[in-house]
Amino acid sequence: MKNTATLLITCPDTKGIVAAIADFLLQHNANILHADQHQDAENNLFLMRVEWDLTGFNLDEASFNHAFSEVANKFSMQWQLKLSQHKTRVAIMVSQYDHCLADLLHRHKSGELACEIPLVISNHRDTENLVKFYGIDFHHIEVNKDNKAQAEAAQFKLFADYGIDLIVLARYMQILSPDFVSRYPQRIINIHHSFLPAFIGARPYHRAFERGVKLIGATSHYVTEVLDEGPIIEQGIDRISHRDQVEDLIQKGRDLERVVLSKAVSWHIENRILLYANKTVIFD
Amino acid sequence: MKNTATLLITCPDTKGIVAAIADFLLQHNANILHADQHQDAENNLFLMRVEWDLTGFNLDEASFNHAFSEVANKFSMQWQLKLSQHKTRVAIMVSQYDHCLADLLHRHKSGELACEIPLVISNHRDTENLVKFYGIDFHHIEVNKDNKAQAEAAQFKLFADYGIDLIVLARYMQILSPDFVSRYPQRIINIHHSFLPAFIGARPYHRAFERGVKLIGATSHYVTEVLDEGPIIEQGIDRISHRDQVEDLIQKGRDLERVVLSKAVSWHIENRILLYANKTVIFD
Amino acid sequence: MKNTATLLITCPDTKGIVAAIADFLLQHNANILHADQHQDAENNLFLMRVEWDLTGFNLDEASFNHAFSEVANKFSMQWQLKLSQHKTRVAIMVSQYDHCLADLLHRHKSGELACEIPLVISNHRDTENLVKFYGIDFHHIEVNKDNKAQAEAAQFKLFADYGIDLIVLARYMQILSPDFVSRYPQRIINIHHSFLPAFIGARPYHRAFERGVKLIGATSHYVTEVLDEGPIIEQGIDRISHRDQVEDLIQKGRDLERVVLSKAVSWHIENRILLYANKTVIFD
Amino acid sequence: MKNTATLLITCPDTKGIVAAIADFLLQHNANILHADQHQDAENNLFLMRVEWDLTGFNLDEASFNHAFSEVANKFSMQWQLKLSQHKTRVAIMVSQYDHCLADLLHRHKSGELACEIPLVISNHRDTENLVKFYGIDFHHIEVNKDNKAQAEAAQFKLFADYGIDLIVLARYMQILSPDFVSRYPQRIINIHHSFLPAFIGARPYHRAFERGVKLIGATSHYVTEVLDEGPIIEQGIDRISHRDQVEDLIQKGRDLERVVLSKAVSWHIENRILLYANKTVIFD
Repeated sequence: MKNTATLLITCPDTKGIVAAIADFLLQHNANILHADQHQDAENNLFLMRVEWDLTGFNLDEASFNHAFSEVANKFSMQWQLKLSQHKTRVAIMVSQYDHCLADLLHRHKSGELACEIPLVISNHRDTENLVKFYGIDFHHIEVNKDNKAQAEAAQFKLFADYGIDLIVLARYMQILSPDFVSRYPQRIINIHHSFLPAFIGARPYHRAFERGVKLIGATSHYVTEVLDEGPIIEQGIDRISHRDQVEDLIQKGRDLERVVLSKAVSWHIENRILLYANKTVIFD
Repeated sequence: MKNTATLLITCPDTKGIVAAIADFLLQHNANILHADQHQDAENNLFLMRVEWDLTGFNLDEASFNHAFSEVANKFSMQWQLKLSQHKTRVAIMVSQYDHCLADLLHRHKSGELACEIPLVISNHRDTENLVKFYGIDFHHIEVNKDNKAQAEAAQFKLFADYGIDLIVLARYMQILSPDFVSRYPQRIINIHHSFLPAFIGARPYHRAFERGVKLIGATSHYVTEVLDEGPIIEQGIDRISHRDQVEDLIQKGRDLERVVLSKAVSWHIENRILLYANKTVIFD
Repeated sequence: MKNTATLLITCPDTKGIVAAIADFLLQHNANILHADQHQDAENNLFLMRVEWDLTGFNLDEASFNHAFSEVANKFSMQWQLKLSQHKTRVAIMVSQYDHCLADLLHRHKSGELACEIPLVISNHRDTENLVKFYGIDFHHIEVNKDNKAQAEAAQFKLFADYGIDLIVLARYMQILSPDFVSRYPQRIINIHHSFLPAFIGARPYHRAFERGVKLIGATSHYVTEVLDEGPIIEQGIDRISHRDQVEDLIQKGRDLERVVLSKAVSWHIENRILLYANKTVIFD
Repeated sequence: MKNTATLLITCPDTKGIVAAIADFLLQHNANILHADQHQDAENNLFLMRVEWDLTGFNLDEASFNHAFSEVANKFSMQWQLKLSQHKTRVAIMVSQYDHCLADLLHRHKSGELACEIPLVISNHRDTENLVKFYGIDFHHIEVNKDNKAQAEAAQFKLFADYGIDLIVLARYMQILSPDFVSRYPQRIINIHHSFLPAFIGARPYHRAFERGVKLIGATSHYVTEVLDEGPIIEQGIDRISHRDQVEDLIQKGRDLERVVLSKAVSWHIENRILLYANKTVIFD
């Protein structure tokens, strides 16, 4: 089992940043495994991900935080440390379409997703057996136009009880309240079944069919208060033709949705995503 | 050199259409080379493309029209016959970006596009040498806010003089007037540098960059009176990442635009496109 | 539930085939839903798939066979009728990697695969729980170098007992004997984890990694007596880079394998595949 | 016009490399624009590309070489410096198919390829006019089975006279002698019209057609003494179907070849390619 630390850094771009970080890590005997950086000239931003082996590293988490803050302050860094052994705890929310859920659960069981999935919440009971087959707690919380606030309160309580770090909307067909969204900034990932910004909102496959496009797509993104406008993490497309009816689009789309959502989740839990200017930098 | 006829047919779907067409062709000794059909259950439409060798076929164009109208009337067909030896005459309109133009001219010279290209019109002089290198007439018609109607009148005259069947907008950066569009229904093909319906209108690569999409695209479509809303013929996409600046999107986009536009042109001139309900059926 | 018939036809190309088939179907009151044909000029072959609604069709299966044989004989047709209500019975064979199996079972349950899957055979016990979760019989038949003939005999018996029409090798890591292969011609589909003909044989991802390719692939094909040389049904690829280790290739490959295998299975059970000259024609 | 330096480094992986490089660049006032690194754990290799603005940098090329050798020696680095203002001089060799040539020349003229192309050599005269249109010297050197050594001697002389750094085989249909290949290690780029290692050698599209693959590809690679076995730089694929004849494969392949070859050339001239173990690392 991996025992590494990952550091994500954003700061104004200036000379000496890489040298300062590299010197700091060398001084504390870090064995760097991967490092990737990006400079956004337009916004004068420096962004970096560095991962090192903790074997031989001479700082624990608390002392790292203390020691690194000197470097961080000098360059006005925003930063975020993640230890591979502290696994992200993921809750999946789902309605009736279970293809993304089944895919995530199977990948998790196969060892593809290095997270914990202790909790699935649904407003339907359709997926209960599948969830239980994988040994995961299933909670049914009905949502209707009258009980939304109450239902979300119950959801928040579950997130707290299970120590949830990340919420994945795996074709959850309810719109979250602004309160919900603001509680979990950059911690809610959704899958939308179109290549955004085309076909924002409901029934994108039907509208794609009506428009006569030759490609359909899927988009995973962080949820923000504006519907389908959050930072895009990943997108995929597939070709269609006049032979494809709406049902074919929906079926082909399922394959896109599975892959696109699972990539977003894996990048998030591996601390590979940096956000700025409503965009993502993916250090993959 | 090929000597074939291609027939495109649209009609209400009912029993006996294929039998009637096949019997008609057999009776006149047609050697069918390709046949492709499509049924749209939702709209109860039958669509077909059939191509046959003219060697041994016992009708000329005039007698075909007469003889086939009996079948066509029985099934309320809209139909369109094209002889391979009657090549489509194409005019290309272009502004300053010449990548699509250069691509079309090279493909044409290589024998990929079975059409004639007697005419290129531009509102700039940048592409004049390239056009002349390929032995094609170049006409410079300046367009500004004051002379648009006059400029278009000059264009219409050239189209008439050169016997133009199809107008290809190969990154022509002027918006055509409603009068222009209505004169050449289903005879103007444009390339738009986004995967429509995303980023309709101006500067799509810049807006794609700002939105932080992970894919860029290009779309070829017939021009109708509503900007970028005409029937889509072909679309292509390419992946981008945070490393790509706007300039990289523009460069990658050029490769998409070339391929997507040239496919649309080749399908049109080979009589492979049927339109209905603002969509295309491509018999490729 | 659909109630249609599908007819696949191969014969020497000559005039009058389409007319004869169309006339026959019209005469028996068939409502054609889809028809697709292909002519191979090089081999002078005509290939066709036609699907019609059985409502109102005035022949049952036995009388169809009798009545159609007159047309078929005239044109020396090989033909194959399939009724949608007579569902293909599929056995899946699997070893330890369960991603293709899990995918097929989930698609089947979701209604994507219009077949029956009464039987899974494995030389390991790893997938037993998963198979049983979907309510399917699981049979463990160990295979080693000493018991191969005996193991295959047990497999043949199961295929017979369960009335199996199609055998899907969903990452089954044993090589079938020539006897096995010859018993089920065009009825065994395999998934190979490379874009054939590259990397025939064992450990293709490792060899792809060593060769430094920039793309990996997966291929579904019918099994013939020559390893990995059977007719290709479908192929998919994904991009890789120097950042991808063998493990990443294997993981990315799983997504390809799932999609490529499931397409092959769905096309087979929908009677969309015609074989000739060690190639497939896919009427999709 | 850009005024940057690019440094490519390969060395055994150990602690302190990044810090040493970053400190060196900081000390000499380099403004780093891009940096990308890769660690190959299996081979214990560290590979890096770093690009910095020369404005304000306090070393010229000679003093850089002297000053950096201390760092380089400490870590046993192989390294290579390239200044953006010292443009790679490219010779293109071509036979009769001119699609890659036309594409490279058009990209170069459009400013996509930051190199000089002073020389085109062909064993035919077909492309002479095209080359001259772009203002480039064209040399016709016939090659036959009797004059190969003599022809290559004439080619070597031209490479020397024109100060050529990189030789691009843009569908040059002659096999180079071992002597030719050994004179220009990692300086000859070829385009092969298949997804290697499938269909090594002659007539790959014909063999792809016969095998019945569902994808065709193209591969750009450095030329080594073993035919089609050199390090792969880039690959692309396109889907085909049973409707595509050999001629269609060849036509679709042209679009792949153009893009795949031009990417390889642009990465080479931008100093983005590191080679090891017969593989490429592309820092794009």
